[in-house]
Amino acid sequence: MTTETNTPVTVLGLGAMGTALAGALVGAGHRTTVWNRSPGRAGALVAGGAVAAGTAAEAIRPGGPVVVCLLDHASVHEVLDPLAGELSGRAVVNLTTHSPAQSRELGAWAAAHGIAYLDGGIMAVPAMIGGPGAALLYSGSAPVFEEHRALLELWGDATYFGDDAGMASLYDLALLAGMYVMFAGFLHGAAMVAPAGVRATDFAALAAPWLSAMTGGFQGYAEIVDGGDYTVPGQQSLEFSDLGDILAAGAEQGVADDAVAMVQRLIRRQIDAGHGKEGFARIFESIRNSA
Amino acid sequence: MTTETNTPVTVLGLGAMGTALAGALVGAGHRTTVWNRSPGRAGALVAGGAVAAGTAAEAIRPGGPVVVCLLDHASVHEVLDPLAGELSGRAVVNLTTHSPAQSRELGAWAAAHGIAYLDGGIMAVPAMIGGPGAALLYSGSAPVFEEHRALLELWGDATYFGDDAGMASLYDLALLAGMYVMFAGFLHGAAMVAPAGVRATDFAALAAPWLSAMTGGFQGYAEIVDGGDYTVPGQQSLEFSDLGDILAAGAEQGVADDAVAMVQRLIRRQIDAGHGKEGFARIFESIRNSA
Repeated sequence: MTTETNTPVTVLGLGAMGTALAGALVGAGHRTTVWNRSPGRAGALVAGGAVAAGTAAEAIRPGGPVVVCLLDHASVHEVLDPLAGELSGRAVVNLTTHSPAQSRELGAWAAAHGIAYLDGGIMAVPAMIGGPGAALLYSGSAPVFEEHRALLELWGDATYFGDDAGMASLYDLALLAGMYVMFAGFLHGAAMVAPAGVRATDFAALAAPWLSAMTGGFQGYAEIVDGGDYTVPGQQSLEFSDLGDILAAGAEQGVADDAVAMVQRLIRRQIDAGHGKEGFARIFESIRNSA
Repeated sequence: MTTETNTPVTVLGLGAMGTALAGALVGAGHRTTVWNRSPGRAGALVAGGAVAAGTAAEAIRPGGPVVVCLLDHASVHEVLDPLAGELSGRAVVNLTTHSPAQSRELGAWAAAHGIAYLDGGIMAVPAMIGGPGAALLYSGSAPVFEEHRALLELWGDATYFGDDAGMASLYDLALLAGMYVMFAGFLHGAAMVAPAGVRATDFAALAAPWLSAMTGGFQGYAEIVDGGDYTVPGQQSLEFSDLGDILAAGAEQGVADDAVAMVQRLIRRQIDAGHGKEGFARIFESIRNSA
């Protein structure tokens, strides 16, 4: 496996995440050129050996893969569109968060300009980049993924999900959906115990290992979902999964019921459709069938 | 520490959880008498050495603590009310899931009849009872908790949360709220990737370690909540936490937006109130202030 440390790399966008990505490249000895729309973000990187370019056009001049980590999909087009000619024949690795359709749109745009496009989703906060636990999901150009794999692994575990440029975004956003919903569930619990004088930090000390342990249940639910038979014995039924006690306790504590009422609604949709005796995993059908 | 194995114990209610609780007692050599409203549930326990009683009154006759694990709060009263006189001076450990107000009501009922009442919440599924990872939360009578601690620890880690009989239920339901909301978040993610041909089991293999790792963020959010200053630097702002990309991807995949729209609503309430530049943990205020 090559360490590729002689490969020049460009990083466009120095928000917290772009800075972390560039920092890992600089730390590994890559000749790294960075650019950010608003100046003054490159200080620490330059001190570490990076070169700060005044324009995006300058920044891509040294050659090598171009890593893009900008605010949103529109920013990516704003920055890359004027450079399309120069990027022809080169590799773009876009780690900007956007929707799968937007990833595919950029993939098609890149293909039309002869640019090899790899789209990525980052399953980590900036502080985790380059450390244990960081995972990055990629899809799009297989040659770019293979050629630059050692570089990509400087940031974290790199997994390739095929040539559909939208797949990494889709996975990324699906995992982020799970994360945001879990955070809301945790803060809901913290709000329930707060009026009883329980500090959020004390609740977190119980909730973190508890929810971590409960992720052990995902695989079982997933097997039921994949099997498509929600009547498999041994499951907790939807009728048994009534959240009335939790809602009542929340009301007693004066908290807003959004988070728990959401789950109750997904359960009720299935009970109302006559599936009350089936397993909890069936709420998957409440989500999948939005019609 | 005494192993108390000579203490007779009664278990009222042999649903999946009551059976697991009784099984752990029998396994430890306790003289265990069990009862269930509908017969035919005690077979395996009796084979293991338990005595099956025909009525709840018979079941409590041997003396020792009375463990209650019934369907709901109403069932507990139905079963215990006629036995109030005989239970006077004895210990009742109630592990039925109900709301904190219901726990307190039973605590007051027990006090009025001279019954020492310990209320408990079980943070485990039946299969986990007596194994690693099972945690049980207790509140109410401190003497009952102390006297029977070794017995309580046959089921899992036992933690005492003070003499307010409602506190264990409150913690229990707050943790269950977090769990159900997390499960909905996981299934939401699985539904997002499903139309792209991704199996739920493959998604679970990524989502379980991801969400488990993300529980590492709870303590940081909790510190902000306890500190009460959501402007502490270094946080991801509410404005940055726009879930538009996730919602757009969900819409592209045709999934119902309940779970993610719920989080977006909690975020928006704070942005609308002028707190968009503050940290994500501020959604705690959207939940706490339901008015």
